[in-house]
Amino acid sequence: MTQIHPVILCGGSGTRLWPLSRKSYPKQFVPLVGHTTLFQASAQRLTGGEGLDFAAPMVLTNADFRFIVTEQLAAVGIDPGPVLIEPEGRNTAPAVLAAALHLAATDPEAVMLVAPSDHVVPDTAAFHAAVAQGLKAVRARGDLVTFGIMPDRPETGYGYLRLSARPDGSGAAVPLDRFVEKPDEDTARAMLADGSHLWNSGIFLFAVRDILAAFEAHAPGLMAPVRAAVEAAKTDLGFLRLDPAAWAGAEDISIDYAVMEKAENLSVVPFSGGWSDLDSWAAVHEQSAPDAQGVARSGPVTAIDCRNALLRSESGAQELVALGVENLIAVAMPDAVLVASMDRAQDVKQAVTALKAKGAAQAEQLPVDHRPWGWFESLVVGERFQVKRIHVHPGAALSLQSHHHRSEHWIVVSGTAKVTVDDEVRLVTENQSVYIPLGAVHRMENPGKVPMVLIEVQTGAYLGEDDIIRYEDVYARG
Amino acid sequence: MTQIHPVILCGGSGTRLWPLSRKSYPKQFVPLVGHTTLFQASAQRLTGGEGLDFAAPMVLTNADFRFIVTEQLAAVGIDPGPVLIEPEGRNTAPAVLAAALHLAATDPEAVMLVAPSDHVVPDTAAFHAAVAQGLKAVRARGDLVTFGIMPDRPETGYGYLRLSARPDGSGAAVPLDRFVEKPDEDTARAMLADGSHLWNSGIFLFAVRDILAAFEAHAPGLMAPVRAAVEAAKTDLGFLRLDPAAWAGAEDISIDYAVMEKAENLSVVPFSGGWSDLDSWAAVHEQSAPDAQGVARSGPVTAIDCRNALLRSESGAQELVALGVENLIAVAMPDAVLVASMDRAQDVKQAVTALKAKGAAQAEQLPVDHRPWGWFESLVVGERFQVKRIHVHPGAALSLQSHHHRSEHWIVVSGTAKVTVDDEVRLVTENQSVYIPLGAVHRMENPGKVPMVLIEVQTGAYLGEDDIIRYEDVYARG
Repeated sequence: MTQIHPVILCGGSGTRLWPLSRKSYPKQFVPLVGHTTLFQASAQRLTGGEGLDFAAPMVLTNADFRFIVTEQLAAVGIDPGPVLIEPEGRNTAPAVLAAALHLAATDPEAVMLVAPSDHVVPDTAAFHAAVAQGLKAVRARGDLVTFGIMPDRPETGYGYLRLSARPDGSGAAVPLDRFVEKPDEDTARAMLADGSHLWNSGIFLFAVRDILAAFEAHAPGLMAPVRAAVEAAKTDLGFLRLDPAAWAGAEDISIDYAVMEKAENLSVVPFSGGWSDLDSWAAVHEQSAPDAQGVARSGPVTAIDCRNALLRSESGAQELVALGVENLIAVAMPDAVLVASMDRAQDVKQAVTALKAKGAAQAEQLPVDHRPWGWFESLVVGERFQVKRIHVHPGAALSLQSHHHRSEHWIVVSGTAKVTVDDEVRLVTENQSVYIPLGAVHRMENPGKVPMVLIEVQTGAYLGEDDIIRYEDVYARG
Repeated sequence: MTQIHPVILCGGSGTRLWPLSRKSYPKQFVPLVGHTTLFQASAQRLTGGEGLDFAAPMVLTNADFRFIVTEQLAAVGIDPGPVLIEPEGRNTAPAVLAAALHLAATDPEAVMLVAPSDHVVPDTAAFHAAVAQGLKAVRARGDLVTFGIMPDRPETGYGYLRLSARPDGSGAAVPLDRFVEKPDEDTARAMLADGSHLWNSGIFLFAVRDILAAFEAHAPGLMAPVRAAVEAAKTDLGFLRLDPAAWAGAEDISIDYAVMEKAENLSVVPFSGGWSDLDSWAAVHEQSAPDAQGVARSGPVTAIDCRNALLRSESGAQELVALGVENLIAVAMPDAVLVASMDRAQDVKQAVTALKAKGAAQAEQLPVDHRPWGWFESLVVGERFQVKRIHVHPGAALSLQSHHHRSEHWIVVSGTAKVTVDDEVRLVTENQSVYIPLGAVHRMENPGKVPMVLIEVQTGAYLGEDDIIRYEDVYARG
């Protein structure tokens, strides 16, 4: 059986689902539909499967998200394959090429399935059946296979795949005629009616050998820089960091533009099992099983006499009450709230731009800040003090550091900390505290097998994150 | 010059302005319009005044609000007169009668002005002029004077005062013909057109002697229980607690029903200076100076393409973004958010009832909990731990107490605390900490001249407020 290497593209940072999706923690890492995150669901979709053999998933992401990736996979019991760190986002063509080159080095016969990490595909069995159909085309003809979504509405927000013939209902791949750019509404209606235009899902299946040949043929300029970035990649705590200098020379371009629209050996597997790229809150509304009045709720929400509304309270502790509203999106978080007309869902980006312009941290940052060692959250910032909750993963350690302007009180509330203060090292457990005087060189570690949680109370005239001198850092930060 | 004794009724706990107004901290204590609270503005309106002599305001409130009352008056530099504590709310008739009886004991000639604490009257000079007109009627004829608001719309939500003649424009009091119940819309239109029907504001001016005579004549059953409640009242930390047993015997009835609708010597001072009882978010919208698109904002709010909307973010730290909404009320707080159609503003009570039914604390409680000694706020509740910010007023002390199930770490972040732990008493200042072991008898005081703020980290299996044994309490709590 041919093994399929899943390649999950996980570097995106969309703003259309603000305030839930932010640059610091974008939508693929959030449980938008159901209880797992979109990324976790994407990875789960690419395991098991009747008659399919999936290798451990390769993930392409950026440095900020790398620990989120490994934590989220661990949480659903999936061992990751290689995790490639893109030094900066260069769109899908360099990412797919890097994945292909990395796979080619160990298995030139490999078949790879490229999938975004932020789509919803509710019917996994149907998806696996489609993959099996694609695999036939890959093996029989060396096709570059795309997956085309059977449209159920005249959507103007997507590109289309024009097939050389109508799908015959067998599910088999159909040769592609050509790509169609996002249409106007009349064109979209005509395409919906004729039955041979499918939405371009951005999911691909091909042999490594075939896609490398296509890159050589259609995007030869990408080969040298991406090959150099892969060859000079550095292993770092289990991640593979592509070489930044080489990577910077790769063109920022999508795989559609660079390769797919030029290649001849393309075929499309028609897919009608349900799919959404959740590109707006309106799409989330649609995927959230709204009730008979069109109301979809998530979290502690009370809705009275509402119609056609998406009502979400994200923290679990904030009550959202909606009274007599219609065609409304309301997303509540403790630090930010969006209320938007349903038909303006596409314009949420504008709101984020406006917030950024006024300097609001909420435009891009969540209150919880993820770090290699765990995460922290500011609970309150007062005059000359700040209180944080700090969560340290088992075995993780913060950098050895000191501060010029603040003292810190640490109270362990869960697990055990190993604390270094100047020359002294000691274990501090639940309900014990440590004082870190201003200027003392200190480090916090979790030597245990369970998460360690502590409350940090900072006092001082200046409490910014940049008042830090790092002496040693296992995560190689400055 | 006749001295006027303001009597401010401050025991209400309206739910129509949820989530900002809650039972634990209702709308009169909130800066809904402008920078002072409605209660502070009410008290300020009843000081000074050209040709008027106001005594220190008497306040009627309940036990839960008594320290909020004194703190808020102190914050605007007003020395309170007597603060009478109603053991339970019995509507306005018993409250006004208690105030009259209390005043009669020291000054039988007193004139009293009864005013709600939660109305907006933007033009204080116009209000004072109206009071001066009322005083003439009180002195010349012993009238019970009400203030009637000249209507500017056919409002169906208020009772009306039908005058015996149209106001002549002089501002002088006009004899009342009769009270009119809340009308239907046609009747309201007719009353608006005829010019001799004014809104009943619930503001009254009369001599103590005259109102007592009116109670004797029209509500004699109230006299004995209320007199007993005043005579048996107990002084407690400067407050006057009406006797609960006697008070329980007083009928729960409004002064309109009990006295005003039956009395003959009523006159009405017409008032056209602008007034609102802020009985709904729609009324707040109207009083909040909406822009040309009808959008009124408060706090960190970003509005894009909105029309006719009230957009409020109450905490100062929560970004509220509104995109393309119309006829919408959105009120954001970190623990609760309301989105409501503007024309459903009158039904916010329904939402609060629904929240109460599902047991949500947000129905009635704010995250900040006010106590006699200051206030506290839960910053985070975790598995076996809780973090609080505690603010103690200068000179105040918490009870001497112990806990069965939790230990506490206290870190002072502002001011100085005097801390008792079992037999040891010591001063703890900014950036110092104290540990309170489980079972230790302890007390926290603020011996200083500035507020003391500390962070309390509790750990233990049970962290409820009811795990407390009180040994001594200056505020006489159980």
